Amino acid sequence: MDFIGPRLVIPIDLKKKPLEQLLPLHNRWHPKIPPVAEVATGEIFRVEMMDFSGGGITRDFDVHDIKHADTSIVHYLSGPIRVKDENGVPAKPGDLLAVEICNLGPLPGDEWGYTATFDRENGGGFLTDHFPSATKAIWYFEGIYAYSPHIPGVRFPGLNHPGIIGTAPCMELLNIWNERERELEENGLKTMKLCEVLHSRPLANLPSKKGCLLGRIEKGTPEWEKIAVEAARTIPGRENGGNCDIKNLSRGSKVYLPVFVEGANLSTGDMHFSQGDGEVSFCGAIEMSGFLELKCEIIRGGMKEYLTPMGPTKLHVNPIFEIGPVEPRFSEWLVFEGISVDETGRQHYLDASVAYKRAVLNAIDYLSKFGYSKEQIYLLLSCCPCEGRISGIVDAPNAVATLAIPTAIFDQDIRPKSNKVPIGPRVMRTPDVLKCRYEGSLPTTKNIATASIAQTSGVEEIRE
Amino acid sequence: MDFIGPRLVIPIDLKKKPLEQLLPLHNRWHPKIPPVAEVATGEIFRVEMMDFSGGGITRDFDVHDIKHADTSIVHYLSGPIRVKDENGVPAKPGDLLAVEICNLGPLPGDEWGYTATFDRENGGGFLTDHFPSATKAIWYFEGIYAYSPHIPGVRFPGLNHPGIIGTAPCMELLNIWNERERELEENGLKTMKLCEVLHSRPLANLPSKKGCLLGRIEKGTPEWEKIAVEAARTIPGRENGGNCDIKNLSRGSKVYLPVFVEGANLSTGDMHFSQGDGEVSFCGAIEMSGFLELKCEIIRGGMKEYLTPMGPTKLHVNPIFEIGPVEPRFSEWLVFEGISVDETGRQHYLDASVAYKRAVLNAIDYLSKFGYSKEQIYLLLSCCPCEGRISGIVDAPNAVATLAIPTAIFDQDIRPKSNKVPIGPRVMRTPDVLKCRYEGSLPTTKNIATASIAQTSGVEEIRE
Amino acid sequence: MDFIGPRLVIPIDLKKKPLEQLLPLHNRWHPKIPPVAEVATGEIFRVEMMDFSGGGITRDFDVHDIKHADTSIVHYLSGPIRVKDENGVPAKPGDLLAVEICNLGPLPGDEWGYTATFDRENGGGFLTDHFPSATKAIWYFEGIYAYSPHIPGVRFPGLNHPGIIGTAPCMELLNIWNERERELEENGLKTMKLCEVLHSRPLANLPSKKGCLLGRIEKGTPEWEKIAVEAARTIPGRENGGNCDIKNLSRGSKVYLPVFVEGANLSTGDMHFSQGDGEVSFCGAIEMSGFLELKCEIIRGGMKEYLTPMGPTKLHVNPIFEIGPVEPRFSEWLVFEGISVDETGRQHYLDASVAYKRAVLNAIDYLSKFGYSKEQIYLLLSCCPCEGRISGIVDAPNAVATLAIPTAIFDQDIRPKSNKVPIGPRVMRTPDVLKCRYEGSLPTTKNIATASIAQTSGVEEIRE
Amino acid sequence: MDFIGPRLVIPIDLKKKPLEQLLPLHNRWHPKIPPVAEVATGEIFRVEMMDFSGGGITRDFDVHDIKHADTSIVHYLSGPIRVKDENGVPAKPGDLLAVEICNLGPLPGDEWGYTATFDRENGGGFLTDHFPSATKAIWYFEGIYAYSPHIPGVRFPGLNHPGIIGTAPCMELLNIWNERERELEENGLKTMKLCEVLHSRPLANLPSKKGCLLGRIEKGTPEWEKIAVEAARTIPGRENGGNCDIKNLSRGSKVYLPVFVEGANLSTGDMHFSQGDGEVSFCGAIEMSGFLELKCEIIRGGMKEYLTPMGPTKLHVNPIFEIGPVEPRFSEWLVFEGISVDETGRQHYLDASVAYKRAVLNAIDYLSKFGYSKEQIYLLLSCCPCEGRISGIVDAPNAVATLAIPTAIFDQDIRPKSNKVPIGPRVMRTPDVLKCRYEGSLPTTKNIATASIAQTSGVEEIRE
Repeated sequence: MDFIGPRLVIPIDLKKKPLEQLLPLHNRWHPKIPPVAEVATGEIFRVEMMDFSGGGITRDFDVHDIKHADTSIVHYLSGPIRVKDENGVPAKPGDLLAVEICNLGPLPGDEWGYTATFDRENGGGFLTDHFPSATKAIWYFEGIYAYSPHIPGVRFPGLNHPGIIGTAPCMELLNIWNERERELEENGLKTMKLCEVLHSRPLANLPSKKGCLLGRIEKGTPEWEKIAVEAARTIPGRENGGNCDIKNLSRGSKVYLPVFVEGANLSTGDMHFSQGDGEVSFCGAIEMSGFLELKCEIIRGGMKEYLTPMGPTKLHVNPIFEIGPVEPRFSEWLVFEGISVDETGRQHYLDASVAYKRAVLNAIDYLSKFGYSKEQIYLLLSCCPCEGRISGIVDAPNAVATLAIPTAIFDQDIRPKSNKVPIGPRVMRTPDVLKCRYEGSLPTTKNIATASIAQTSGVEEIRE
Repeated sequence: MDFIGPRLVIPIDLKKKPLEQLLPLHNRWHPKIPPVAEVATGEIFRVEMMDFSGGGITRDFDVHDIKHADTSIVHYLSGPIRVKDENGVPAKPGDLLAVEICNLGPLPGDEWGYTATFDRENGGGFLTDHFPSATKAIWYFEGIYAYSPHIPGVRFPGLNHPGIIGTAPCMELLNIWNERERELEENGLKTMKLCEVLHSRPLANLPSKKGCLLGRIEKGTPEWEKIAVEAARTIPGRENGGNCDIKNLSRGSKVYLPVFVEGANLSTGDMHFSQGDGEVSFCGAIEMSGFLELKCEIIRGGMKEYLTPMGPTKLHVNPIFEIGPVEPRFSEWLVFEGISVDETGRQHYLDASVAYKRAVLNAIDYLSKFGYSKEQIYLLLSCCPCEGRISGIVDAPNAVATLAIPTAIFDQDIRPKSNKVPIGPRVMRTPDVLKCRYEGSLPTTKNIATASIAQTSGVEEIRE
Repeated sequence: MDFIGPRLVIPIDLKKKPLEQLLPLHNRWHPKIPPVAEVATGEIFRVEMMDFSGGGITRDFDVHDIKHADTSIVHYLSGPIRVKDENGVPAKPGDLLAVEICNLGPLPGDEWGYTATFDRENGGGFLTDHFPSATKAIWYFEGIYAYSPHIPGVRFPGLNHPGIIGTAPCMELLNIWNERERELEENGLKTMKLCEVLHSRPLANLPSKKGCLLGRIEKGTPEWEKIAVEAARTIPGRENGGNCDIKNLSRGSKVYLPVFVEGANLSTGDMHFSQGDGEVSFCGAIEMSGFLELKCEIIRGGMKEYLTPMGPTKLHVNPIFEIGPVEPRFSEWLVFEGISVDETGRQHYLDASVAYKRAVLNAIDYLSKFGYSKEQIYLLLSCCPCEGRISGIVDAPNAVATLAIPTAIFDQDIRPKSNKVPIGPRVMRTPDVLKCRYEGSLPTTKNIATASIAQTSGVEEIRE
Repeated sequence: MDFIGPRLVIPIDLKKKPLEQLLPLHNRWHPKIPPVAEVATGEIFRVEMMDFSGGGITRDFDVHDIKHADTSIVHYLSGPIRVKDENGVPAKPGDLLAVEICNLGPLPGDEWGYTATFDRENGGGFLTDHFPSATKAIWYFEGIYAYSPHIPGVRFPGLNHPGIIGTAPCMELLNIWNERERELEENGLKTMKLCEVLHSRPLANLPSKKGCLLGRIEKGTPEWEKIAVEAARTIPGRENGGNCDIKNLSRGSKVYLPVFVEGANLSTGDMHFSQGDGEVSFCGAIEMSGFLELKCEIIRGGMKEYLTPMGPTKLHVNPIFEIGPVEPRFSEWLVFEGISVDETGRQHYLDASVAYKRAVLNAIDYLSKFGYSKEQIYLLLSCCPCEGRISGIVDAPNAVATLAIPTAIFDQDIRPKSNKVPIGPRVMRTPDVLKCRYEGSLPTTKNIATASIAQTSGVEEIRE
């Protein structure tokens, strides 16, 4: 058999809306969303995708699309794709679907992306109590590199990856999801003390008819009505993979996904040009449209063979990933540390989330000394190839988390030096990120010890 | 001035106990522990250290030293070292002390180490509810490589690093530590729901006269009595650095430590031949004695210049680290994922600690399919160069944590394959880790979905 | 100004021949070949190209296209491209043209390539005296990976790069080239003793009207006739860059080319999916069609500023290259050594070419023990990401050259082991490369010491 | 059996001369030099060594030791070491000796080294026709880093490695060496045209009684007299390994050496803190004393199994090397190219030595624009971790060689920039290397095109 290059199984026309695509997109997980394409193991196929917002967020230098973003529509996924073996037998529940990411990148002619953080009352982000406003930065791609007119002085090679890749859940798994997330949504504030420190709202995103898109199932039909109230939102990563946001899942990587329904029903979307570990600003990678070239294998009976359930049912499993050999090589890293003591000085017990929050805050404050606004760094740390590590998780009471930033992405030496950082009239990097005023009423978290750092007085602005 | 090689400022005689060393060790943080050595900026000096237990844990193939370990004595540190500049002016509070790690390694003639996990009622570890027994593995070093007779089939190059490096706290900072940790110890169980999932005991380790060693301050003197009840334990990392457990802090790295007392009073200890991110088994790196060759700089006024307080006082800061360019290059990684759903299936809210626990459990179960006992893998993941990442911390309600393991450390291909892992009579890697029976009464956590995996029946043992 | 993605300045239609392209190709260097496109500094532009043979070598499993290849037509280049600055002022002689390779890859729908070695009487290769026959292997691309049905058991990520990138020479430089190469062609055999060991023919490739393509200058016109007899062949790398064959010149790299004519007249071609250092089989990388996305800067007066002539004129310079940060990371390498003693046992004086020849021969013999034919390895070493180093060039009389091969490209462990390589009935990797019988009369070089290794008797063939 | 750390089998006392060492050194290859130590396979043992000159070259800031160096004594080796298996059976001719380099470094208290180039009439170097004077630079080690007071502004981590590691030749192999080198020495100038370009003298270094040290064979005895006239010099790498100068042969590497005499008789020496590919200045790495921790295996019959003779006898083989996983990670490289056209403009045929010479000359001229003398760069390129590649060896008539330099070793950005390098009164890096006047009569090679670059007029000197 002759080789004929990747077969395009899901095309995207960027001039059309998600619903208008030749093979309509979907933005929920449900076993009954019908496949729009079929592939065989061993063949290379190409999947195109819109950015997660389906074009709702634009390249305009205007942040109102972020402020008023309709979060009920995230994320527009391409698929489902039905996978069968070379004899035409489909993947079956209990199999493992190995998906190799042979190639990927932006869609030709659409070489740009954005990083943003939502308004605190519309989704927020990891640090939304510190940064409640909606902000946005546009990035342009020069081949492997990205730069932003809104965050001058940085340029870095991207590790493109799909934020979301997953198989369809079966009904039993879907019910488990909906039940446990509803329990959290309803009772979490009473029982989860962690919520005092992490301020994103809502606690979970339950099924909603609003914004729901189910591929070939037409809106308003009885089938749609039934599925829409059951179908899981795509926001969190779960047993089926989904929104894993693994920043190194780039060219040459492989994902081993559990199969819950016949044909596996693989979906993917939320392409990122680059992301930092944690994706802290939430809308936080460099979001873009893009393509994937994939190859599948089916490991028959692989769930039992390779995955061990961790929970009350055999469905409580997680995918496995293999990271490929091609990555930017960075040699020097500056590392910020956080411990599980919060901004009020309160001690938390081995809480890696609190520790990581503090590490990120430390990094933002430090880097803002080099002429950046804190919002610029917040968005940057969300999308540049920084590494977030759990360094120590046993030395009670402090978890130690670290955030490592490759120094080469900056056009200046950002390491501490014996001769001081320039102070007084600082050189500001302008323009700043696009930014809305926060008009909500929720309180923000302040560093108690520091008077507001005077970034507004005596500042000498330079245009890059 | 001629160059004369590293000057040995703190020698260790491994035949002697911590108290008997020429320059006595200490195992608490307190501003009044007097310096035992003095160095100038710019000079290379050598510091030797015992392993954290001061020789209490031996290379014998016997685990009772772990089971009955006296945790009140951890960690024996070398120092404090007073640092002055080239004009003889000491480091001052508010300065930043830059410490370069020029070289480090095991002490000659003592090229071995151990990894262990304490009994659940004597300190436990990250997974103590799953693995309540005390276990121990001995490692031998062949230059850069370590191998263990108790975990056959793995060998890897170590990234040697000091688990602990820090400056002395001032009294104000010490009081902050003691107050917040006491609050946790006293009220944590009532207010911190996280504790249901992480089972280490106690919640914090408050000052204790038992086991306390204060360097040149003689035990039983009034001064000793006063300090011993105030001096902080060395277990958690805090504002002064301390037990950061950053696995990449190896040759060529640099630490920027805040200075809280005149002379900085630098102490270091807890040398590791290698550690995995998180150090999950608690006594969990490859623990060893060792030496460091260091060089210091003082950045005058550097705390204000480079660190931003994150909390109620100006002392709420964290150190900064620079990672050096020399590391083992691994090209392929197998990655396990965890989400913040616990073993009972309960949903937690963006809890990276729960997610990481699940990622580690997933890795243990997976790797145990290749002929290992779960205890072997638990110790291995604690000390091999694996990376623990916070991949997603914003996609409510699930935090996504990942554990990446370099495939090259195994003598077999551990990736999933279409042809199955051998099952039925498995080939077991023996001998196993040294292990005690758990005789306590605390309940253990079981995977509800899985019947106990039959590792005891029909197993063909082979000796390597 | 809004960003609009890479502008396509040179399109290729693979269904057409080199001469029929919208912007006709050229295969010679000459200052009077007119530019076919114009770009400004700072803009990203896209250049497409045919493979070096302009489609003459096909993906058929037939080697006669190699055996009878018309070498007078190599290499079909895209360009020249005239470069001007943002004010419209063209690059000028004496400037330096900085060309950044932002992105590159195969042309969509043409994801395949070939590696070959010419017949000894039609160009040969580095080891043509050992391997006089024409051979060919087809490679298929799966995203970043390539594999060949003719060299089973290997698969590797490619470092795509343009084999040829250069500026047009001025007449003075062209004359220098023609003169020195003619001198070699005419007198080399008498004066260059090295030729006894390296057997490629001819010594140089002088201008020839046969096969000459000059872009927009129509064949047969007086202008064509004049230029065709002057225009330099593109085979060797020279002062203008040209056929540098630097295997790491991939995404994120930058080339600093001297400018000899107004507008710089940049041309590029000979795209490689992957190449080993030395490109030993001559037609030796994985040859393919492809695209480049480039960005130019002009450094005014940069030749004088940054390049130092090394020869009788100011034109005797060489380009400078900057290698980018994105590459496959390999961690283990097997290294073969050669010294400057030839196959007859004769001692050469610090001759790195002889040493490298021996290193390559050593590697071929070694790897052929693992089930490969020597021809398979010869082609493989020409195109896989192996590194050829000049390790020692001063320890008279032996130059030491080394060839380092990443072990991860093989599906078996190729390192020496205490338990032997299987011998007797070897497992042969089949099919073999496509191969013609050598019908010429030139003698081949034999290893005197070794009887022919019995690869033909008792061999068990398996199909992969 | 308990593990007891590396056993010291060859100690060195740096206060003593080579002849006075407890286990006397040797500086020739001969089968009859008796072993001074014995090791078993599987054990870790420690070998200490003097620098190649046996202490003849000092850390004084005086270059006369280089100018008048007695080259008849190079290189003082530790050994031979007899290797037997765990049953006491020695390695036998035809076996392969696998030597793992577990650890290595400078001798404690002797953390310094030197890089030099000999006077043209006393050994010279790769560029001796350009740089005929003896020069010397002292390097000091700060753990993994080296810096030189004579080459300010650079500091880099070293890849320590033994320049020489090899087994003893048998008489038959020794005779082959002596014969082919004598033939070159006697007739080379008549037959090898390459010599016009490479100017080191003499062509080969034949056996000489002068300076000869034969370990335990006492000078002046009949045995000594007989062996001294036969024993091969250690300067070139040969079939037994020897002076391979492979810069990456560091921690974790493995060498597979052919065994020619019973017991293998392993010798090693010429320790380098760091070396650039080619070791161009000849005395050219950072030369130092040091220690190795080694482990041996014997692959019985491995020569036949793994090595293929390449020449008239079965002894014409070369060792194989495995490079370990621990290395400095550099991410950005500046690359200089050379083609096989010499400084007079003459075309050579695929001559990689000529091409590499030109690449090195190009790099020296370029880097000297940044404030360095050419001698500083010549020594630097000889010892810093730069890579010398054979990029193209088939594109007649030009070989293309490249020299890649990691940019991170400099304290300034050495890449070409649109804004010019400062010219006119340059900032010179001082002090310069230690340097003698060349008093010989051999002509030097000049760049014809360039007037001498005015480094002497209008130069502003600054002390670092």
